[in-house]
Amino acid sequence: MSSMAGKVIKCKAAVAWEAGKPLVIEEVEVAPPQKMEVRLKILYTALCHTDVYFWEAKGQTPVFPRIFGHEAGGIVESVGEGVTELAPGDHVLPVFTGECKECAHCKSEESNMCDLLRINTDRGVMIGDGQSRFSINGKPIYHFVGTSTFSEYTVIHVGCVAKINPSAPLDKVCVLSCGISTGLGATLNVAKPPKGSTVAVFGLGAVGLAACEGARIAGASKIFGIDLNPNRFEEAKKFGVTDFVNPKDYDKPVQEVLVEMTKGGVDRAVECTGNVNAMISAFECVHDGWGVAVLVGVPNKDAEFKTKPMNFLNERTLKGTFFGNYKPRTDLPSVVEKYMNKELELEKFITHSVPFSEINKAFDYMLKGESIRCIIRMDG
Amino acid sequence: MSSMAGKVIKCKAAVAWEAGKPLVIEEVEVAPPQKMEVRLKILYTALCHTDVYFWEAKGQTPVFPRIFGHEAGGIVESVGEGVTELAPGDHVLPVFTGECKECAHCKSEESNMCDLLRINTDRGVMIGDGQSRFSINGKPIYHFVGTSTFSEYTVIHVGCVAKINPSAPLDKVCVLSCGISTGLGATLNVAKPPKGSTVAVFGLGAVGLAACEGARIAGASKIFGIDLNPNRFEEAKKFGVTDFVNPKDYDKPVQEVLVEMTKGGVDRAVECTGNVNAMISAFECVHDGWGVAVLVGVPNKDAEFKTKPMNFLNERTLKGTFFGNYKPRTDLPSVVEKYMNKELELEKFITHSVPFSEINKAFDYMLKGESIRCIIRMDG
Repeated sequence: MSSMAGKVIKCKAAVAWEAGKPLVIEEVEVAPPQKMEVRLKILYTALCHTDVYFWEAKGQTPVFPRIFGHEAGGIVESVGEGVTELAPGDHVLPVFTGECKECAHCKSEESNMCDLLRINTDRGVMIGDGQSRFSINGKPIYHFVGTSTFSEYTVIHVGCVAKINPSAPLDKVCVLSCGISTGLGATLNVAKPPKGSTVAVFGLGAVGLAACEGARIAGASKIFGIDLNPNRFEEAKKFGVTDFVNPKDYDKPVQEVLVEMTKGGVDRAVECTGNVNAMISAFECVHDGWGVAVLVGVPNKDAEFKTKPMNFLNERTLKGTFFGNYKPRTDLPSVVEKYMNKELELEKFITHSVPFSEINKAFDYMLKGESIRCIIRMDG
Repeated sequence: MSSMAGKVIKCKAAVAWEAGKPLVIEEVEVAPPQKMEVRLKILYTALCHTDVYFWEAKGQTPVFPRIFGHEAGGIVESVGEGVTELAPGDHVLPVFTGECKECAHCKSEESNMCDLLRINTDRGVMIGDGQSRFSINGKPIYHFVGTSTFSEYTVIHVGCVAKINPSAPLDKVCVLSCGISTGLGATLNVAKPPKGSTVAVFGLGAVGLAACEGARIAGASKIFGIDLNPNRFEEAKKFGVTDFVNPKDYDKPVQEVLVEMTKGGVDRAVECTGNVNAMISAFECVHDGWGVAVLVGVPNKDAEFKTKPMNFLNERTLKGTFFGNYKPRTDLPSVVEKYMNKELELEKFITHSVPFSEINKAFDYMLKGESIRCIIRMDG
């Protein structure tokens, strides 16, 4: 235990006081971890679209003031009552969704959608006692998806913390907390392209590029990258993309273009945009008899997926995935090992790095579409 | 080779002269099998809805005069040029779809949708030379789905004939040519319910009951049978159905009823009606995290499958299947063995039996909804 175990820690955190306004670095008080919680010292965090989405808070219930951040790497500072699997000094990745190891989902080999700790973007408090662990002058600052990594110290439910190889560089593997694992797992765990197969990836943002990286690792013979923004095509080559398709370049649906290019359809498709028309295209571009399409991108709540049932009857499969079907605690350590043994390349996802004091620059890079991932160094 | 090898055989066949009119037993001439064809002596045939559908010929291109029939058991009488896998005397099941063993689908482990011999309901001739092998007074009588088993002798492409264990009783295993294998395989090969899981089957006709039988064999803990006709419920118990749900008994969508009954959804669902609303219900009633729904019933061509994409994103899978994903030549022999070793019960599917001379009675039984399967004895 650190000397601060059981005590309040005062540290710096980037507080979002209002929707869409620049974060402000403040001194916050971080309460000690309670039952089944751990307090982490965050060393590196990264910015993900989901942070920006809830910071903009368009069309959602706004929860402010709030500390965002959910992709990060850190070290356990102290643990609360009942925590036996983690100890101070452990290197960990916090995760926005959890694994209680006791519910039906955790016990299922197929699901990672833990009943207890499944992502909840509206809740700004800990599930144990309904309180926040962050405060300024006694007034609560709310949590975000149970992680709030834009703080030098944060408190997290033990079920949302993956213990990893301590020799893994946290400034690299921190990106595995969310987007990269989501795309990678969608391909490797769900689409499962056989070696030599063809894969189409819709959307070449961070998640889509991670899906491409998964296809590259799986040994796909061709990887089709589909995006409306041609500026993404050059960068995508590094992630194994062999063929680029911009739907704007054709006067017919992109699924028809892909079926023609592949003489019948791709073997696997992964949809990473959240646009329902891209979902339909991703499904309809897979080959009959064996094609599998995987949905990753989160849709607008009013969106409706539509297709002719014969597209299913002709032996196509459509699946959705959440966090790449990885169980956070059970599976993330093995993803870190994929990086350690050089199977998975993470450096190419990290296009920018800023000190914590300049965290708002990370938002600018993302909003301008310049970054894939920007690492925020907490010591800076 | 029989003494008739290479010669025309005159025999009895039930000819459909016009859409919807009773079949007429006629003397037909059956030409010898040509390259890659075999001539079979049919011993038993059964009636399937697909025969009735194309005999009624509502909204399709009518192809008459025609010899229907595609569920059957027979013995090879003679073989054409190039046929090496079958010999006279072999016991076989003809199948409405084929397996050339050379196309991409046949080479794929996942598909059974052979490019060369995939079902074609419009074609009334052999694919080799575009001719019919049946004639009366020199005028062609057309084939149906390459099988035309309502004839004492028929000519079939070798790729549509499965060689089976000669000790299997053909009056029982003949029903494996189509509907029973379709439902059974949908469950066993595609839905793959783990032992102890819950399964919902939509539609308790022959295919649906075979899907239930598959769930029973797989060791499902509960099998929900969903049908609008309560008369089917008693019979369905024999096929392992434990819980009956009639959507008419509820004032909310049946998927909501099933989700409540199972506290979250069934593990697997199999849709055997072809009604697009039942398809949507089947998909939406499976559990998040691991649920798999399988579509079997053939939809109306204008039907549109619609659902919220979040239903997929929450880790549900939707797949379609054709002929239970069985490759006819490779896999049907093993289904026959399932019957031989008493794992699969076929007797309960066979509710009626008529001599060939009374084949029109089989149509009556089916149209009245009285039969599951009616066997037609060709020697009668």
